[in-house]
Amino acid sequence: MAAAHRNLAIFCEKPLDLRLGTLNDIRAEIERRHLLLMVAFQRRFDPAFAALQRDVAAGRIGRPHLLRIVSRDSMLPPEAFIPQSGGIFMDMTVHDFDMTRFLTGEEIEDVHARASVLIDPMFARYGDWDTAVVTLRLTGGALVVIENSRRAVYGYDQRIEVFGDAGMLAVDNPPFALRPEGQAGVVPFFTERFREAYRVELQAFVDAAAAGRPAPVGVLESIRAVEAALAARRSVETSRSIRIEEVRG
Amino acid sequence: MAAAHRNLAIFCEKPLDLRLGTLNDIRAEIERRHLLLMVAFQRRFDPAFAALQRDVAAGRIGRPHLLRIVSRDSMLPPEAFIPQSGGIFMDMTVHDFDMTRFLTGEEIEDVHARASVLIDPMFARYGDWDTAVVTLRLTGGALVVIENSRRAVYGYDQRIEVFGDAGMLAVDNPPFALRPEGQAGVVPFFTERFREAYRVELQAFVDAAAAGRPAPVGVLESIRAVEAALAARRSVETSRSIRIEEVRG
Amino acid sequence: MAAAHRNLAIFCEKPLDLRLGTLNDIRAEIERRHLLLMVAFQRRFDPAFAALQRDVAAGRIGRPHLLRIVSRDSMLPPEAFIPQSGGIFMDMTVHDFDMTRFLTGEEIEDVHARASVLIDPMFARYGDWDTAVVTLRLTGGALVVIENSRRAVYGYDQRIEVFGDAGMLAVDNPPFALRPEGQAGVVPFFTERFREAYRVELQAFVDAAAAGRPAPVGVLESIRAVEAALAARRSVETSRSIRIEEVRG
Amino acid sequence: MAAAHRNLAIFCEKPLDLRLGTLNDIRAEIERRHLLLMVAFQRRFDPAFAALQRDVAAGRIGRPHLLRIVSRDSMLPPEAFIPQSGGIFMDMTVHDFDMTRFLTGEEIEDVHARASVLIDPMFARYGDWDTAVVTLRLTGGALVVIENSRRAVYGYDQRIEVFGDAGMLAVDNPPFALRPEGQAGVVPFFTERFREAYRVELQAFVDAAAAGRPAPVGVLESIRAVEAALAARRSVETSRSIRIEEVRG
Repeated sequence: MAAAHRNLAIFCEKPLDLRLGTLNDIRAEIERRHLLLMVAFQRRFDPAFAALQRDVAAGRIGRPHLLRIVSRDSMLPPEAFIPQSGGIFMDMTVHDFDMTRFLTGEEIEDVHARASVLIDPMFARYGDWDTAVVTLRLTGGALVVIENSRRAVYGYDQRIEVFGDAGMLAVDNPPFALRPEGQAGVVPFFTERFREAYRVELQAFVDAAAAGRPAPVGVLESIRAVEAALAARRSVETSRSIRIEEVRG
Repeated sequence: MAAAHRNLAIFCEKPLDLRLGTLNDIRAEIERRHLLLMVAFQRRFDPAFAALQRDVAAGRIGRPHLLRIVSRDSMLPPEAFIPQSGGIFMDMTVHDFDMTRFLTGEEIEDVHARASVLIDPMFARYGDWDTAVVTLRLTGGALVVIENSRRAVYGYDQRIEVFGDAGMLAVDNPPFALRPEGQAGVVPFFTERFREAYRVELQAFVDAAAAGRPAPVGVLESIRAVEAALAARRSVETSRSIRIEEVRG
Repeated sequence: MAAAHRNLAIFCEKPLDLRLGTLNDIRAEIERRHLLLMVAFQRRFDPAFAALQRDVAAGRIGRPHLLRIVSRDSMLPPEAFIPQSGGIFMDMTVHDFDMTRFLTGEEIEDVHARASVLIDPMFARYGDWDTAVVTLRLTGGALVVIENSRRAVYGYDQRIEVFGDAGMLAVDNPPFALRPEGQAGVVPFFTERFREAYRVELQAFVDAAAAGRPAPVGVLESIRAVEAALAARRSVETSRSIRIEEVRG
Repeated sequence: MAAAHRNLAIFCEKPLDLRLGTLNDIRAEIERRHLLLMVAFQRRFDPAFAALQRDVAAGRIGRPHLLRIVSRDSMLPPEAFIPQSGGIFMDMTVHDFDMTRFLTGEEIEDVHARASVLIDPMFARYGDWDTAVVTLRLTGGALVVIENSRRAVYGYDQRIEVFGDAGMLAVDNPPFALRPEGQAGVVPFFTERFREAYRVELQAFVDAAAAGRPAPVGVLESIRAVEAALAARRSVETSRSIRIEEVRG
């Protein structure tokens, strides 16, 4: 908000804020001032994921039926990070909610989530979890499955598969040296996995600012992802599927 | 029951019966007569899945955290089959429920399911679906994701991945000729995919009968899988996670 | 040469010329006039291959021992192209010779080749072949294997694997829709496989021209690749390994 | 020969003997006495390789054009083993020569080999090498590429790919736990990789002995593999392709 009051072009870490109210306020302010605000959902800029999006949009697999996102961190965060992270759905799954919208061009209608503490009891101390599976129904009827883990011992594991009535497309982990020790054939950390995505993302921000174009990923993307994260938490607490409207207001 | 009354060794198509009451009656009769009854969950006898089970049981990936089963048929069944199939959960997912118990050695505690008609409206005419995702919580806390589709245009797609605190193991589709037309690198049909499994399974039945040993897969396996299938249907109808006890009686 | 005489910046299809004498003349002229001449070995600019080169150069697999290049076209060229193509080694393998130098940073010392006409007898009419395997020894002792085919019925198949004393790295075919018909999971044609490479390559030429920098791929690269292609043909004709010096003159 | 003189059924480690003369003597003796002699080329009995052979024989990829065998050991042998091993071609590649004949049903016509000492100078002390690439021409015109290394740091790497005019089939390394340390997703040792092959192989021997049937892998298989190994060594020494007839007599 401080940056908005100075009429700056703004590039901000996802998901911008953990509260829908604040996000709506930010959105109103940005629109009122006609400012550029870009949210750092960098995975949209990963060359492999971006190519997948183009292929799906071009109809290569027909109409999407099933989308699967595997997102597993390789290293546990320090304990001090947990209480300020917003929890696994707000910190990790929020990316997958955004990728779902990016890849299918559809909106999330309904969220179901399960979560466990299987890796480290420290997560339980903050009412958080380290392992989760989430399923979604999209507005077009497609179903989505998301798997999250805070620690894959073999590396930073990020894979996406889209299955439709005319075929299937998958993005596997990029090639990484198969070595005797260390991360067995899988890239070790997100900084390495998304190095190119960060570069392209920042360039997109600079280009948008220079050309006076709107942000390719704006406040609305944050709002939609945060809504889904709130619904996921409520789903774990109630053992129900949660329609997005229930958290929307 | 007719075979039991004649004291025969019995080998029966899964899931034996779609009603828990009948299954319990069968179980009582079989136990009373000390008969051999083997249920044809043939996937347990697939060499690749059986090796996976041994590797998981041997602790190669540590304690399982996430299990993922993809099971997609390659051809739609004829419409006449649908009303007598018991529906997608009883006909298809029942295998995946059994594989879950087989691979983890744990029991299913809780079932959540989503289902859609995306391929052919004929399924809707019988209150059935052609696409489904199911998530489970197991007694040890592990989470399970199952994806089902009645038609993968590229072939009969059966994959399993187990992720644990010490690593990951996956069984991919077996090698199949990458050819210009037809099923693109994926085996076309279940008869071909599980040819060896059927052979090993039948041998296991004959061996058990000859040696007077109990069935490697018996009525209890049917009961547990049918319970989960009933819970899945109820979950779709109520938008809730269903604890197995709720359907058990 | 006409472009050189006008002192233009030159971007030319590989391998520039099929004769070493002409290539040496071009090189002399370009150097005398301090011109920019870039040869279109576009595979160096493919993001996946470029990342592989960086990883190998960074020592991720240690010292390279074995390099394997699979390069298979998806469609036969028209017959009229064959007599002017220079033959399979000059038209196809020339790319793989260049990739060998690019990926290892070493020079080719010795070439052995085998070639057959297995796909279409039209190749034999011009003293050419449609299928070939080539092995190389590099100056550092590493061994290289190249497989070429004029027609892979399932798609345009381009894969590279580098094996060293500390591990292995591989670039597989990029994800392509797994579909019921058509190119089964493999990209259909080189224009699609190297679309991004062509873009990056052309940008590199423009950047070099604008900055007055030397070409990232110049006449020397053509000379080295053509030498290896000449050695490969001589190897087929003599059933011997041919040292590069033998063709160098 | 001692076993033959006692008219025993004989099961012997490959390649039986390193000298063609002795192999021919053994063959004559076995035929004269109508004995069973089975040579332990166990890879023929590996379920995945056996399925590949059946698929190729059934015409699934059409006529084979290119065969590729990667065979890399995971651990160096002790130095004492080297002088009695017969060298890399007689000890390692001999398996790949046999697999070539098994998979294609064709005979080896011509052998070219390259070899280097890149891993450990101890091999050079015995005139041996630790890294090799071999190419073959078969009687039907198909070309073969074999890669051997005495040490792959990431595990015991055994892969085969057959490419034909109607498609491609490949056998990859079997699934192995992807773990943070140790053999990264690749099985660690041949005893584990071929455990099932050894079991099936021994059963085939017992069955042949019980039924009075000839050996599924007999002296002729040793003779053909040893001929190719002798040709490979001569090829390294002369830098020429060696026709099998040149070593045969």
